[in-house]
Amino acid sequence: MHNFEELSDSFSRRFNQKHFPENPNNLYEPADYFLSIGGKRIRPVMCLMANELFDEIKEDAWNAAIAIELFHNFTLIHDDIMDHAPLRRGMQTVHEKFGSSSALLSGDVMLVSAYDYLNKVDSSSLHRILHIFNQTAREVCEGQQWDLDFETRREVTFEEYEKMIGLKTSVLLAGSLRIGSVIGGAGDGNQAHLYEFGKNLGLAFQVQDDYLDAFGDPLKFGKQIGGDILANKKTFLLIKAMESADSKQRSEILRLMKNNSNEKISLMITLFRDCGVDQWAAEQKEKYTRDAFQHLEDIAVLSSRKKPLADLASFLLGREY
Amino acid sequence: MHNFEELSDSFSRRFNQKHFPENPNNLYEPADYFLSIGGKRIRPVMCLMANELFDEIKEDAWNAAIAIELFHNFTLIHDDIMDHAPLRRGMQTVHEKFGSSSALLSGDVMLVSAYDYLNKVDSSSLHRILHIFNQTAREVCEGQQWDLDFETRREVTFEEYEKMIGLKTSVLLAGSLRIGSVIGGAGDGNQAHLYEFGKNLGLAFQVQDDYLDAFGDPLKFGKQIGGDILANKKTFLLIKAMESADSKQRSEILRLMKNNSNEKISLMITLFRDCGVDQWAAEQKEKYTRDAFQHLEDIAVLSSRKKPLADLASFLLGREY
Repeated sequence: MHNFEELSDSFSRRFNQKHFPENPNNLYEPADYFLSIGGKRIRPVMCLMANELFDEIKEDAWNAAIAIELFHNFTLIHDDIMDHAPLRRGMQTVHEKFGSSSALLSGDVMLVSAYDYLNKVDSSSLHRILHIFNQTAREVCEGQQWDLDFETRREVTFEEYEKMIGLKTSVLLAGSLRIGSVIGGAGDGNQAHLYEFGKNLGLAFQVQDDYLDAFGDPLKFGKQIGGDILANKKTFLLIKAMESADSKQRSEILRLMKNNSNEKISLMITLFRDCGVDQWAAEQKEKYTRDAFQHLEDIAVLSSRKKPLADLASFLLGREY
Repeated sequence: MHNFEELSDSFSRRFNQKHFPENPNNLYEPADYFLSIGGKRIRPVMCLMANELFDEIKEDAWNAAIAIELFHNFTLIHDDIMDHAPLRRGMQTVHEKFGSSSALLSGDVMLVSAYDYLNKVDSSSLHRILHIFNQTAREVCEGQQWDLDFETRREVTFEEYEKMIGLKTSVLLAGSLRIGSVIGGAGDGNQAHLYEFGKNLGLAFQVQDDYLDAFGDPLKFGKQIGGDILANKKTFLLIKAMESADSKQRSEILRLMKNNSNEKISLMITLFRDCGVDQWAAEQKEKYTRDAFQHLEDIAVLSSRKKPLADLASFLLGREY
């Protein structure tokens, strides 16, 4: 059994190599650049851990893990175009640095490369792995589309937002785990538990992320506090606040959203507290976390084998900043 | 054996169905819309013909053909974004009608769907088909990047342009043929000849397309004569003209490219004639066509089996407009 650091290091040694040829430079340099920015490589490591939950890590899992990380980076490059995002992990986004045509096309070619790595998977499980991968990919696109739709929608319910986050964020964690588990030889029941573990983990993580934007410690958060509030981003907090606000609080929230004064952030945070949203978010995160760990517990392998995944989940959710 | 019309009809019956679910509507309606615009379905039919050259058409070929057509449409949607094209086949492009984010994302999901159809291919040839498909997809992206690069380059050589067209246009014809031939059970030698047949056919077709822009019959061409000239598009004609022009003609070409007067088109066409480019294009198309048919001839099957492919090539290249 290997912990996150060991797997992350091993994965990086395999992943941090040239995936693309030199030319055309304007196609492949943007792709190389974006991969060089790094990232926590959580999804590929989850794929590896899910394999190791059931058996020794097989070569197929490494290739699937690389495919997953390439896919994830492809979605980030394209999302950044759609969101007009200037920065990603503190660095210029691809479309900012190389123009949107090169960003679009280098994203496309990165997705094709992901399928190249999948194609290294053994024939015996290729159909099954491709099926999970394709379904996950389609759902991630759907999640991104709902997210775009919600930007211009006046009202978004909690259920709609939860579903969108489930698609945009959670299914890739869940799919990575399922792919790893298939390679490890897991049966359907264990696969399903692992999938639900990933889905709930993703939701818990998103509640936490939304919570930290408003209530995080500015010294530890790493991003500007209130960035979501300033951008009127629909988050778990805003949606829940709208649902629990009385009519006066509601109009105050709507008024603040049209406003871009300096106090917008602090006033909105106060409103969130008044609506009990901070408390709600803590409970909601707790609920998702509990569900995630219950599914992990329900997987029929020795509990000692589950430690790396449990530790990783705790690490991801235990951050106090 | 089936001819183009029969295969095109059969293919359309399979292809013209709902490939996508209802929601999110802003993701899938653009995809459905674009597929409904139609197209000649040449690539999937080539895949089917290449299968039938060697054996009866197998279920795998139909699925690969659908994947190929979905892939082709994905490239068109994304190319239109990059080219800021308002129209495609006389209809609004996806980004014009639905916005560029939906166009980007519905292209992405269409590519994923292509891989869904590929995943229906039998395990025994899935690795091989995916390998050809991925390589083709990557090369098409490379071709599009070179095309974008050439827009802002002052000089492009004939060899560079030929290579770009080979990647952007020809490899998908060639790859479709190779995939069909693998499914039909062709050996490496026959596959390679079929691939070269497709590559040369694509190049011949592009020379013809570039030629018709300047010298076509306006009544039959279907597009505005001189559209490429107006847009200063680097074509076989412009590139060859620059290579064969004397210094006076060269400066005249460069002067015209900066100019947008009414006579730009007619003056450029005259210059093309003066440089002998019309004659050259006819010979160059003839050369590619000859090479294509030679490779078709070299395929080791009864020549009667080659008739549908030969007819299709003649039809594509014999257009006098």
